[in-house]
Amino acid sequence: MTATRTVTATGAALGYARAHAARHLHDVATLAAIPSVSADPAHRGDVERAARWLVARLRSAGLPEVRLHRTDGHPAVVGYAPAPPGAPTLLVYGHYDVQPAGPSGAWAVAPFRPVVRDGVLYGRGVSDDKGQLMAHVAAVECWYATAGALPVGVVLVLDGEEEIGSPHLGPVLDAVWARYRPSAAVVSDTRMRDARTPALTVSLRGAVHAELIVRGAAGDLHSGAYGGAVADPARELCRIVCGLHSPRGAVRLPGLPPPSPRAVPGEAVPSDAEVLGLGWARPAGAGAVEARFGAHARATVRPALVVSALRTGDGRSRAVVRAEASADLSLRLAPGQDPARAVAALRSRIRRLSRPGTVVSLNVRATAAPVELPTSGTLVDAARAAARIGFGRAPVLLRSGGTIPVVHQLAVVRGLPTVLLGFALAEDRMHAPNERFAVDCFRGGVRTAVALLGASVTGPPAVPG
Amino acid sequence: MTATRTVTATGAALGYARAHAARHLHDVATLAAIPSVSADPAHRGDVERAARWLVARLRSAGLPEVRLHRTDGHPAVVGYAPAPPGAPTLLVYGHYDVQPAGPSGAWAVAPFRPVVRDGVLYGRGVSDDKGQLMAHVAAVECWYATAGALPVGVVLVLDGEEEIGSPHLGPVLDAVWARYRPSAAVVSDTRMRDARTPALTVSLRGAVHAELIVRGAAGDLHSGAYGGAVADPARELCRIVCGLHSPRGAVRLPGLPPPSPRAVPGEAVPSDAEVLGLGWARPAGAGAVEARFGAHARATVRPALVVSALRTGDGRSRAVVRAEASADLSLRLAPGQDPARAVAALRSRIRRLSRPGTVVSLNVRATAAPVELPTSGTLVDAARAAARIGFGRAPVLLRSGGTIPVVHQLAVVRGLPTVLLGFALAEDRMHAPNERFAVDCFRGGVRTAVALLGASVTGPPAVPG
Repeated sequence: MTATRTVTATGAALGYARAHAARHLHDVATLAAIPSVSADPAHRGDVERAARWLVARLRSAGLPEVRLHRTDGHPAVVGYAPAPPGAPTLLVYGHYDVQPAGPSGAWAVAPFRPVVRDGVLYGRGVSDDKGQLMAHVAAVECWYATAGALPVGVVLVLDGEEEIGSPHLGPVLDAVWARYRPSAAVVSDTRMRDARTPALTVSLRGAVHAELIVRGAAGDLHSGAYGGAVADPARELCRIVCGLHSPRGAVRLPGLPPPSPRAVPGEAVPSDAEVLGLGWARPAGAGAVEARFGAHARATVRPALVVSALRTGDGRSRAVVRAEASADLSLRLAPGQDPARAVAALRSRIRRLSRPGTVVSLNVRATAAPVELPTSGTLVDAARAAARIGFGRAPVLLRSGGTIPVVHQLAVVRGLPTVLLGFALAEDRMHAPNERFAVDCFRGGVRTAVALLGASVTGPPAVPG
Repeated sequence: MTATRTVTATGAALGYARAHAARHLHDVATLAAIPSVSADPAHRGDVERAARWLVARLRSAGLPEVRLHRTDGHPAVVGYAPAPPGAPTLLVYGHYDVQPAGPSGAWAVAPFRPVVRDGVLYGRGVSDDKGQLMAHVAAVECWYATAGALPVGVVLVLDGEEEIGSPHLGPVLDAVWARYRPSAAVVSDTRMRDARTPALTVSLRGAVHAELIVRGAAGDLHSGAYGGAVADPARELCRIVCGLHSPRGAVRLPGLPPPSPRAVPGEAVPSDAEVLGLGWARPAGAGAVEARFGAHARATVRPALVVSALRTGDGRSRAVVRAEASADLSLRLAPGQDPARAVAALRSRIRRLSRPGTVVSLNVRATAAPVELPTSGTLVDAARAAARIGFGRAPVLLRSGGTIPVVHQLAVVRGLPTVLLGFALAEDRMHAPNERFAVDCFRGGVRTAVALLGASVTGPPAVPG
């Protein structure tokens, strides 16, 4: 298409998006009603069901080639439309698996019965990432319904294992590369600056998820008869967790390189009040950790070691030296920190902290590298233009503290120009009870996705971060 | 009775015990088959059932006055036979509640289907304390069946809440004192030196059982978006637990008086290998804690702070900063350490360790004072003689690291001469999976209890510890 024809066609697709907004939102709710919790084996059938629903939906949107890609874990869904002659092929990555709902008592709605209240859709996965990926699916439909074709090639890769570290995505990407040769990538699994201001996310933290286990005697022991005489695995676990931090609470892992984030001129830096106020909850305390950094910096360009779970005891007996205690550690890595070196540093530190009387082990479950993305180039320009169409305002550049394992694969390992253009808000409670997604953000997301397909999305590859 | 008649009568009662040993053991198994777990509300009906079974059994043993004593918690069972003219009244304390079974996978037998294998009875509560209290019930029957009466007055007090700190026992003891005026007490809830050597337990540790809770934000938070920016309650919990100990692992609670155990000439001191070898499990490691003390001393005359439970996380999601984390602390107090001062020291230390960004609280669930008992006197002499009849060998004096809340009440608050004469073994796995009780120990216990009733059990009150 010529530039003028594309602009006209984009306008028609945007008109279709406006006319079909309610149905597209209903699609999000339908998908979010399927509890596709990848971490829970009990939900294996639900993950499969969500994948099959997506296969059907991608077909009904108009994509000519759609398939369930089997892996050694949960399947991926891949949809493809070839590029018109001379046009590039845009890879759109999203994930249809979700975090567990967590304690149902903490939810104001049933987590898997999405409802709209006051312009906000509530339910597990509505913002992370089902609502965001469905914006792209809706955009594909808008183009097919109005222009009868897409202005660029598209390959949609919908991961079923992002929340467990995308362990089986490599072969899926290999197959995508072999068949479709994408020339640029967009990932919508990040946040906006605020409800009115879109954002291009320019860096992500990496992650090491691991289980720390401390074993003592072969069985539980009476705490009266043995307390003090024998090593207490639960107390040793606490001591090791302590020893992974400085007295002030910063991560202390000798051998882990210090963060080395690149300068991002003009990056947006949310205030402490914005980061910690959360709007929807009692303010989260900042503690005394690394007070010389602001909360946003601590959550994006500093490492963090979060204890996501502590386990020992049966909830009843309380006069017992346990045989075993364990913790789930979620180590976030700042730009410049290599996951392999982080794992080595963690193992070495834990070994050093272990004392006689216990056996300590670390099971690494998933790792992902941090990534920094180019802040200029053809794709970035196209994304800026699309976001301006979608939300009426130019996007800002924003760092994220989260981890999206695929991004390092796309942008660094495979060298693809990649943008992170997400539609969620800080207050959307990703991974937490009462997850939400603003209807206006979804609509702006659909418009942005429509416009991105209409924009020229490739050019000379930018330098990957 | 005269001394000669009592000796003859004791011989007849011992003969009856030998003839009815199998049935008496069967009684233990029948009682242990009732899962009277006081800590678990789901077992409230079972606790009641065990109490009712005991009421019937005490009656069938011959006690003329038996009743269920209602409390604000689980009931106590009280059985009474008045003393012959001029004879003393012996209070026998036992408890019929048990610890939870814990993980069923760790049991080689069903915890509430007691079975005998190779001369050992297996099941939850068989040694702690059902088998031990039933030795006294059997002894009562032996006397009634052979002599038609007891040589002394007896008041059996069977607690249904020992494993949760005996919170409602005070009014039961008040009623017992008002009605029956006991003149001495025996408690069988402790161990022997080894399978052939009985022991008089001469000191117990006290205990403070408390729950430590650390709260952060109002809800769980994404560990990528917030990790490092906000306080992590699970990590703070670990830090506080760490801070309750010295770097070497000893309890560090400023304000807690140091232990001040009395000298016990001739006390038995099991070796480290005996304490830590356990026989039945892989050796428990001693760690580097207070290495200048032996394992037995560390478990009896030194305080210990055991972490019996750590709780946070839902077992699935692992990329989350939790809203809350908690730990069950089991603080054992050495002789000379007052529980009220220990609680104050614990609160003060925890307050000092708390940092901005979290709210820390301590819920004290139960406390008990440590106790030291006299090692001479009429009652001690009677107990020595009885144990010699029961096991063919004089008992040794032994300290215990455990806590029996009633003992401080009996021996100190009410000033009653009290002996701890127990029949369990160190390897009986009290509070642990595969709890056991040696059939020979039960039989020796029945003989000892028979002989104790036949002995003169009172005299000038000894100095309480």
